[in-house]
Amino acid sequence: MAHLDTDDELANPRVSAADLRDAWPVLDTEGRVEGFRHLTSAEAEEIFLELSAIDRAQLLLSLPPAEQRWWLRALPPDDLADVLQAAPDEERGRLLDHLDEATRRETNVLLAYSEDEAGGLMNPRYARLRPDMTVDEAIGYLRRQTRERVESIYYAYVLDQESRLQGVVSFRQLMMARGDARVRDVMVSDLVTVPDEMDQEAVGRLFAQHDLLAIPVVDAEGRMQGVVTADDIVDVVREEATEDIQKIGGTSALEAPYLQVGFLQMFRKRAPWLVILFVSGTLTVGAIRFFQDTLDQIKLLAFFVPLIISSGGNCGSQASTLVIRAMALGELRLRDWWRVFLREVAAGLALGAVLGALGLTIVVAWHHLSGDPTNVPLRDHFLLVGGAIGLSVVGVATWGTLVGALLPFALRRLGLDPASASAPLVATLSDVTGLVIYFSVAIVLLSGTLL
Amino acid sequence: MAHLDTDDELANPRVSAADLRDAWPVLDTEGRVEGFRHLTSAEAEEIFLELSAIDRAQLLLSLPPAEQRWWLRALPPDDLADVLQAAPDEERGRLLDHLDEATRRETNVLLAYSEDEAGGLMNPRYARLRPDMTVDEAIGYLRRQTRERVESIYYAYVLDQESRLQGVVSFRQLMMARGDARVRDVMVSDLVTVPDEMDQEAVGRLFAQHDLLAIPVVDAEGRMQGVVTADDIVDVVREEATEDIQKIGGTSALEAPYLQVGFLQMFRKRAPWLVILFVSGTLTVGAIRFFQDTLDQIKLLAFFVPLIISSGGNCGSQASTLVIRAMALGELRLRDWWRVFLREVAAGLALGAVLGALGLTIVVAWHHLSGDPTNVPLRDHFLLVGGAIGLSVVGVATWGTLVGALLPFALRRLGLDPASASAPLVATLSDVTGLVIYFSVAIVLLSGTLL
Repeated sequence: MAHLDTDDELANPRVSAADLRDAWPVLDTEGRVEGFRHLTSAEAEEIFLELSAIDRAQLLLSLPPAEQRWWLRALPPDDLADVLQAAPDEERGRLLDHLDEATRRETNVLLAYSEDEAGGLMNPRYARLRPDMTVDEAIGYLRRQTRERVESIYYAYVLDQESRLQGVVSFRQLMMARGDARVRDVMVSDLVTVPDEMDQEAVGRLFAQHDLLAIPVVDAEGRMQGVVTADDIVDVVREEATEDIQKIGGTSALEAPYLQVGFLQMFRKRAPWLVILFVSGTLTVGAIRFFQDTLDQIKLLAFFVPLIISSGGNCGSQASTLVIRAMALGELRLRDWWRVFLREVAAGLALGAVLGALGLTIVVAWHHLSGDPTNVPLRDHFLLVGGAIGLSVVGVATWGTLVGALLPFALRRLGLDPASASAPLVATLSDVTGLVIYFSVAIVLLSGTLL
Repeated sequence: MAHLDTDDELANPRVSAADLRDAWPVLDTEGRVEGFRHLTSAEAEEIFLELSAIDRAQLLLSLPPAEQRWWLRALPPDDLADVLQAAPDEERGRLLDHLDEATRRETNVLLAYSEDEAGGLMNPRYARLRPDMTVDEAIGYLRRQTRERVESIYYAYVLDQESRLQGVVSFRQLMMARGDARVRDVMVSDLVTVPDEMDQEAVGRLFAQHDLLAIPVVDAEGRMQGVVTADDIVDVVREEATEDIQKIGGTSALEAPYLQVGFLQMFRKRAPWLVILFVSGTLTVGAIRFFQDTLDQIKLLAFFVPLIISSGGNCGSQASTLVIRAMALGELRLRDWWRVFLREVAAGLALGAVLGALGLTIVVAWHHLSGDPTNVPLRDHFLLVGGAIGLSVVGVATWGTLVGALLPFALRRLGLDPASASAPLVATLSDVTGLVIYFSVAIVLLSGTLL
């Protein structure tokens, strides 16, 4: 365990990269800077390259200008753009001043893209060749492009005079080819590209589908703009899944690691949804009040309210998470809603039948085991009560399943995020209707005997 | 839209790769084979390389032996191993017979690993060099290694006589280096490796942390076994997130795309959890029955049961999803439970206070708006009733938050998957305790006036 926050430890610079990494989430900015400066330069570089853009920006802004310049120059343009985006507006210009003219221009191009589209993910530095070069010329040309700090890229892209992408050749293919062959004869021309404005989630799906290590980014005119690599996509896929999971749980996306989100910020991400759910939940008060007379006549019905409505919520939360995830993976499109509807009606009825039978069994078993002689309605009509409960569960489970399965489609149709069909929202929506179903079934089945 | 299932269409081979991709999820095996055979060979290869291991195995087993052999040989050993694992046991030997001796040996090594550990993900084919070669010798050696169908790998790994990994050099670095330099002087020796038995989720975290395109896999003696590449990790990260999301929704992991899971299999993934939740939910029946007398005296209390217990479930599902995801990302370890406990007690109290105040306000507003003169208890004691409801909500919300935050830690401590602390499970657990808190607060506050 690291205790970087005690003076004793700081006076004694035995801080390793592992210690600092361990303590990072709980350190304030000052503590991080202190710890960072006690590392060897190799360790500092290791830690610096692992940091998120937000942490990098925070750390950089606390360092003296000379060190800022040094660290900024260690970053490729795509990471630079992320750091600048994470820094306060008023600091951005000062940080940009540390860069050389060419890098500043590249970084400014990237800053024009939103960080969740292909243009914001891409690296604008990549190896370029012309189709009519020979392989030997190409290798010589690449060897002379000894520009420092280019991110490791393993493909060279073949562009025509207008920078339109013609094909791609791996360094390996170049090395294996005959020296006098033309690049155009060695290159692969049937290649996957993405438009610069494609959403990062869609870019992630393309990487998953094609198992590629790099995909070139082109603008509307087919001119190559940069390269997105699979290592960046690993981060994208993790972030998108994290956002969806947090939304499914009924929170707004946190946008930072759990332990690094301040208390107030955490509160702001969680309270609004809880308030919306609570206010929607008051509809249940109205629903029960509406059936007050029925409840007065058969008090027993109140016992089963939480059990019955929660079975609707549970079925709904299964269905909504399955549909939300299938949409995110590109397995379901809007037009598939009818197919999903049919599947989930059947699933809801089947699952409801199992739970309904279980409900009936539990009431019957309860009657036989407890045999409470004061409990007149249950004594005389336990099969009827059990039937009402069982049948309600079938209805509530089917309804909950459909709400859960179709709400993500409805949200998407409205241009909203399907993941907002969170488990708590689906449960709350099916609670209200669940009560109506429950009491209606009870009235129909029990009127004449208990009502 | 594709209609591959009609005879008319099949007689007329105008099937494109896009048509088949579109119709794939709804086609049976026969339809898929038919569609596949109507593609041009380039299109067939495109589709084949996109398929999941399960679909590849199914398709292959329906093709004649000569075609089986052809397609199997198009696959690298790691994909081959996945296909063989997806095929029925009795077919495995027959498929292995199609491979040449060297590939069969490589594939058998991979089959010995579980598919969710580093050894099961890695490609055993990679470029090897010796540290004392010169750069020119290394390039010549690599050019002679013209083995066909090696997956595109952009690093050469430097091994000693015992196959222990000494360093790595990118093809790019080799091309840029002076021809007479030694490989050992060009290579990077400070590199990230993974043990062959490391879980794929941990491998994914390493890729995310270090932004690498490939990580070498070594055995317990430091001997290199193969390479895991970032494109495979994109799939791993997606699969792991899918599993977690499905578990959070209260389903067992589906292990196949939503539309491709058969009805019966879908039922088997969903019914067991619903049954467990329903049976646990019957505890709520007991809880309400226990407080039957209180409920008889103040019927009004029944109106608020769903609202109050669901606020506990909502808070709990927020907390559990945040903690589950932070654990999966490696942001929280078991020993962090105390820190999480403290944060979530505070969060639960703050969120509960907001909802409690809202509850009190709603009762007061309801009293003023409805002014129902027959509703004696609410008329005379609306502030007391509102207070009881508000205070219960604070308690239920705090308790639900803690259950949600700590259940994933408890599951992990027991060696179970934290993601099993699903939203429905947390809601069900907090329903029972929520009822106890609600009725206890009501008894304490209202005894003497309404009780």
